Amino acid sequence: MAPPAMIGVDLGGTKLLAGVVDADLQVHARAHRAAQALTLNEVLDTVVSAIDEVRAAAPGEVGGVGLGIPCLMDRTRGVAMMSVHLPIAGVPFGDLVAERVGLPVAVDNDANAAMLAEWQAGAARETTDAVLLTVGTGIGSGMVVEGRLARGAFGAGPEIGHMVVDADGPECGGACPNRGCLEAVVSGPALAREGRELARERADSALGRALAAGREITGALVTELAHDGDPAAQEAVARIGRWLGVGIANVVNIFNPQVVVVGGGVIGAGELLLAPAREVVAARALPPMRDAVRIVPSTFGAESGMLGAALLAAGADR
Amino acid sequence: MAPPAMIGVDLGGTKLLAGVVDADLQVHARAHRAAQALTLNEVLDTVVSAIDEVRAAAPGEVGGVGLGIPCLMDRTRGVAMMSVHLPIAGVPFGDLVAERVGLPVAVDNDANAAMLAEWQAGAARETTDAVLLTVGTGIGSGMVVEGRLARGAFGAGPEIGHMVVDADGPECGGACPNRGCLEAVVSGPALAREGRELARERADSALGRALAAGREITGALVTELAHDGDPAAQEAVARIGRWLGVGIANVVNIFNPQVVVVGGGVIGAGELLLAPAREVVAARALPPMRDAVRIVPSTFGAESGMLGAALLAAGADR
Repeated sequence: MAPPAMIGVDLGGTKLLAGVVDADLQVHARAHRAAQALTLNEVLDTVVSAIDEVRAAAPGEVGGVGLGIPCLMDRTRGVAMMSVHLPIAGVPFGDLVAERVGLPVAVDNDANAAMLAEWQAGAARETTDAVLLTVGTGIGSGMVVEGRLARGAFGAGPEIGHMVVDADGPECGGACPNRGCLEAVVSGPALAREGRELARERADSALGRALAAGREITGALVTELAHDGDPAAQEAVARIGRWLGVGIANVVNIFNPQVVVVGGGVIGAGELLLAPAREVVAARALPPMRDAVRIVPSTFGAESGMLGAALLAAGADR
Repeated sequence: MAPPAMIGVDLGGTKLLAGVVDADLQVHARAHRAAQALTLNEVLDTVVSAIDEVRAAAPGEVGGVGLGIPCLMDRTRGVAMMSVHLPIAGVPFGDLVAERVGLPVAVDNDANAAMLAEWQAGAARETTDAVLLTVGTGIGSGMVVEGRLARGAFGAGPEIGHMVVDADGPECGGACPNRGCLEAVVSGPALAREGRELARERADSALGRALAAGREITGALVTELAHDGDPAAQEAVARIGRWLGVGIANVVNIFNPQVVVVGGGVIGAGELLLAPAREVVAARALPPMRDAVRIVPSTFGAESGMLGAALLAAGADR
């Protein structure tokens, strides 16, 4: 008998994706929700309604639920310790969801879930040592160390986005007291910032014309114009890519991984982002590690967190 | 019957320490050698003569030899890939030693060996997640991740000293192509550099008078004058300590460890180094991880590498 399908829920800071996922990682139903500026009860209701929706559409019985949440977990207590985007700090969120849906619920950081999916079936398959960076509003990260998904002493790690690469750099902001973190120089907002600066400097570029026309310069717009061939937008992406390369060089020197997987919204820029990052890694990382690592985009993209959450529910991380 | 004693050899870039170590980590014989500017054959002869010396003084049969070497290892091939201080790159050094002494030989990076000793019996005892930084001529590092000594895909990691903390900082030098690495701002030479700068700025300090008297301003001298109470020397140590704090904050955010152990020659400055480091960690690291970590000096000091090498020989890392 095949093992039962699991429900994976990727609860982001702005939206939620839930899916019924079978043991072959096939997705049998999906539900989307907005999840911005909610109270704790609204977050709970949103999660439960998405679970109910996909459960009703599942081809058979569902064995459990996995939740990926953008927060620092205390896995010893099953409690979210700190979350920038959701009002769940100090809350045993998994227990509350389990009570409502009557299924066992596993909870982890969303990037750990994404790492698990990429490691079990995606870009980090068949590796013993791998790192995932998801670059979006901030940076999420996951690590596989010597054949195991690793999370640190009480499960709050890794937070590679909060590794300083520029000690006197910009303030990181939000709940992070630090400055010059990788997340402060590599993220959607950082890409928008570089885009605005280049739009002002190069008024005759597509980026400059977009600014003049009153359009909001977002990371998504910069990425779109870069794909369209605008050199100013491409330079904005490349600047972020070079900083990403500094961060990846650190990761390569620290972990000696076989692969570094880059996901999140900003990877929409593809090679325009990764090629400059690889150049910096080639220039900065120690040769033995540098020559043995692949730097690749995620396989599952926006679904990696949801798929990984389902894998968590199935106990694939143990 | 007690397990046999093992010989641990810590082969540094300038000197060698060998010892016969029993299963209770008691040291029954020690041998010291200089090991600077040697050819490969001279390094081999030096190692073998030190092993022979302590073996002759051992209370009983010896079961094997562990070697800690300051190099990036390829543990899949048993070959040193890169060594700044010794001419052993590409050499199956452990095999060569085993052939000469007729005992099984285990080889690892010297800081991995030191981490093993501190984890099994020292400052990181009874932890599941720990990081060691040995600050001397450069920075060596070791990591325990979820209850295992971890070294990366082919055993070359971790090289936390080559984590960039100041992207436009000083060149790292030697075999490292990077700049602004932790090692470039935290090391014996970095302490001497800060000491020279402060000696010039503060001619009436003990440090300034030492410079005026023609003494060479070394890290050891700065440390000595700092312990004697000279404010200029203490400020030089504090500057290094604050940079060390930036590096430790990164390690805390990445690994969520229970303890960070600091060893190596520079830890001779003790709390004069660690207090400023802790202040920076308190200011920069993410609160949940920061509040759960201890930052402490190594228990075994200059003997941690030798003890850890003996533990390697006994298979304590498996």
